Amino acid sequence: MRFIIQRDRLVQSVQDVMKAVTSRTTIPILTGIKIVATSEGVTLTGSDSDISIESFIPKEEDGDEIAEIKQTGSIVLQAKFFSEIVKKLPTDSVEIHVENQLQTIIRSGKSEFKLNGLDAEEYPLLPQITEENVIKIPTDLLKAMIRQTVFSVSTSETRPILTGVNWGVENGELTCIATDSHRLALRKASIETETAEHYNVVIPGKSLNELSKILDDTNKLVEIVITENQVLFKAKHLLFFSRLLEGNYPDTSRLIPTESKTDVVVNTKEFLHAIDRASLLAREGRNNVVKFTTNEDEVIEISSNTPEIGHVVEELQSQSIEGEELKISFSAKFMIDALKTLEGSEIKISFTGAMRPFVIRPINDNSILQLILPVRTY
Amino acid sequence: MRFIIQRDRLVQSVQDVMKAVTSRTTIPILTGIKIVATSEGVTLTGSDSDISIESFIPKEEDGDEIAEIKQTGSIVLQAKFFSEIVKKLPTDSVEIHVENQLQTIIRSGKSEFKLNGLDAEEYPLLPQITEENVIKIPTDLLKAMIRQTVFSVSTSETRPILTGVNWGVENGELTCIATDSHRLALRKASIETETAEHYNVVIPGKSLNELSKILDDTNKLVEIVITENQVLFKAKHLLFFSRLLEGNYPDTSRLIPTESKTDVVVNTKEFLHAIDRASLLAREGRNNVVKFTTNEDEVIEISSNTPEIGHVVEELQSQSIEGEELKISFSAKFMIDALKTLEGSEIKISFTGAMRPFVIRPINDNSILQLILPVRTY
Repeated sequence: MRFIIQRDRLVQSVQDVMKAVTSRTTIPILTGIKIVATSEGVTLTGSDSDISIESFIPKEEDGDEIAEIKQTGSIVLQAKFFSEIVKKLPTDSVEIHVENQLQTIIRSGKSEFKLNGLDAEEYPLLPQITEENVIKIPTDLLKAMIRQTVFSVSTSETRPILTGVNWGVENGELTCIATDSHRLALRKASIETETAEHYNVVIPGKSLNELSKILDDTNKLVEIVITENQVLFKAKHLLFFSRLLEGNYPDTSRLIPTESKTDVVVNTKEFLHAIDRASLLAREGRNNVVKFTTNEDEVIEISSNTPEIGHVVEELQSQSIEGEELKISFSAKFMIDALKTLEGSEIKISFTGAMRPFVIRPINDNSILQLILPVRTY
Repeated sequence: MRFIIQRDRLVQSVQDVMKAVTSRTTIPILTGIKIVATSEGVTLTGSDSDISIESFIPKEEDGDEIAEIKQTGSIVLQAKFFSEIVKKLPTDSVEIHVENQLQTIIRSGKSEFKLNGLDAEEYPLLPQITEENVIKIPTDLLKAMIRQTVFSVSTSETRPILTGVNWGVENGELTCIATDSHRLALRKASIETETAEHYNVVIPGKSLNELSKILDDTNKLVEIVITENQVLFKAKHLLFFSRLLEGNYPDTSRLIPTESKTDVVVNTKEFLHAIDRASLLAREGRNNVVKFTTNEDEVIEISSNTPEIGHVVEELQSQSIEGEELKISFSAKFMIDALKTLEGSEIKISFTGAMRPFVIRPINDNSILQLILPVRTY
């Protein structure tokens, strides 16, 4: 294998596939990046066996030469060293050349590295996925849907299925749901599909976080292919594979209250800042619990009290308070997480009494919903 | 105590004095910030008993009212909470009011905090320093002198005196020296002094690092007062006290070679980048040792070899190589640290053989010197 390539393109691709590489793997070859040069260009692959990422650099794009392939072939290089090296090379182009014995030369200007490579034949094959039933979704919408749900996945391995996000596809609509059993995030959107098939899968939260980091903020379409135990995301020159979680995701539809006893409309930002301040003194280790009280004249009071430190009271003018008076306590952290995902300047919070889950939605937008279970305070 | 103050000025002052506050103190009241309101303005104090910082906010500056003092007095508030609270307050002005029983109200817009304060009478007094023999130095020069020496202090408590920087004042010149016994940094500069007195003190590296973070990048003069066991730095509205280290600093003058056998002149940036790349493969845990070789045609070769990973060779065109041929090994980390402090595009490295310390200086500038001990390689 021997090719000359633009350094910046190589650096970008290496950074992308590095998202899948971990040093904590029991399969030594997965600490490497696989590099394959064909007559079409150069393909890099990184994997931790849960997530696999493949990035392709074409030899030519829009009439510009990006890589000159002198000899096709393949090698696996230690990811940790290879990624540091390419970042720091002195000139705009890099030559990579596998000599005999898997020894690989990386040359740029007057800088020359010789790295001991590994045989690419020993690198695990990526899942073979037949590209039927492709779902298409704009990149920025996909990233928003991930951001608005993935923070609610469970971080505990007690119920592994809850560490993933439940993706359901039905009637041209994608619904993403995440819950750690104390809160729930739901986001849905219309999508393009070629099929009437239904899907109901659970994608690891970690995979979605890494995917989100790699994708650009464009409105170009990402193609998604779901199989029995894998999901594949295809963007330009990029393949992102993730395994799916096994098991049945709990039916969350019964959790979401359909009616309410108190409805409050507030400005999202003002409410977020008030909660943030009120949580400053909230007792540590108790998940920053704050108290929410409806007062007269559409005023909301948010307060918290920690006898040894002090007391805080925030007053907030709401747009409207309808229904019963309410005193309720909840985790400020959960509320802040939820509010950060809600676009639009105003939100409606619908309560069904102090001991029942409540729902936060942007006004005039049914595509997103955040649910929080209150905390019993004594 | 009761006053109304501009939030931004309060936030800035709190941030400054927080540099001295640590939660790991055995004196509980030092986890707090002392606030004193007089008819002149508000003074904040933070201290960890090694470093003490006092920041003054005048009630009026350049004709603008900054604080309105309604009642003089004092209080100590928990630094951790107070600093978070002031940063997040909703409006541009803040009222701070000590009620009975040391309970303190912080009010801004519709946000109201009640914090349990501590009695300011119990806060330790700052050192009393008579302001004789003042040394004056521009702020930016002081920061440069700190930056160019403090990185070389020892991090080990085996010889505590080496964790500080040796400051000597003699004949209108300040000399700063730091060494961890593997490398040495020296920087000198002319200063304004009112006195012919000599000083030779050792200032803890940590104090200088914190001082450097607080000082603005201006050329305004900082006043320095050195006493037997304390040093005081005075900038506008700011007092920074540090204790001095006890003991005798070793005489380092004999360490610095006065003649050389090989002199190399190189471009600082090119050399820095070549060393940085060569160190990528250098064996971990052995302090990143690289090999430096003078070749023909004024070429320098920098290389490193770690059999299990690979080999790197960097070639660099020097400006000149004078004297004997040389092969020498040294810590890439020490070289990178040293090069980062050297301004000017070209440096001269003066060697006295492969086993002797060598000296790096900018060309045409005798005010700064970096010395590194080579590493014996087998």
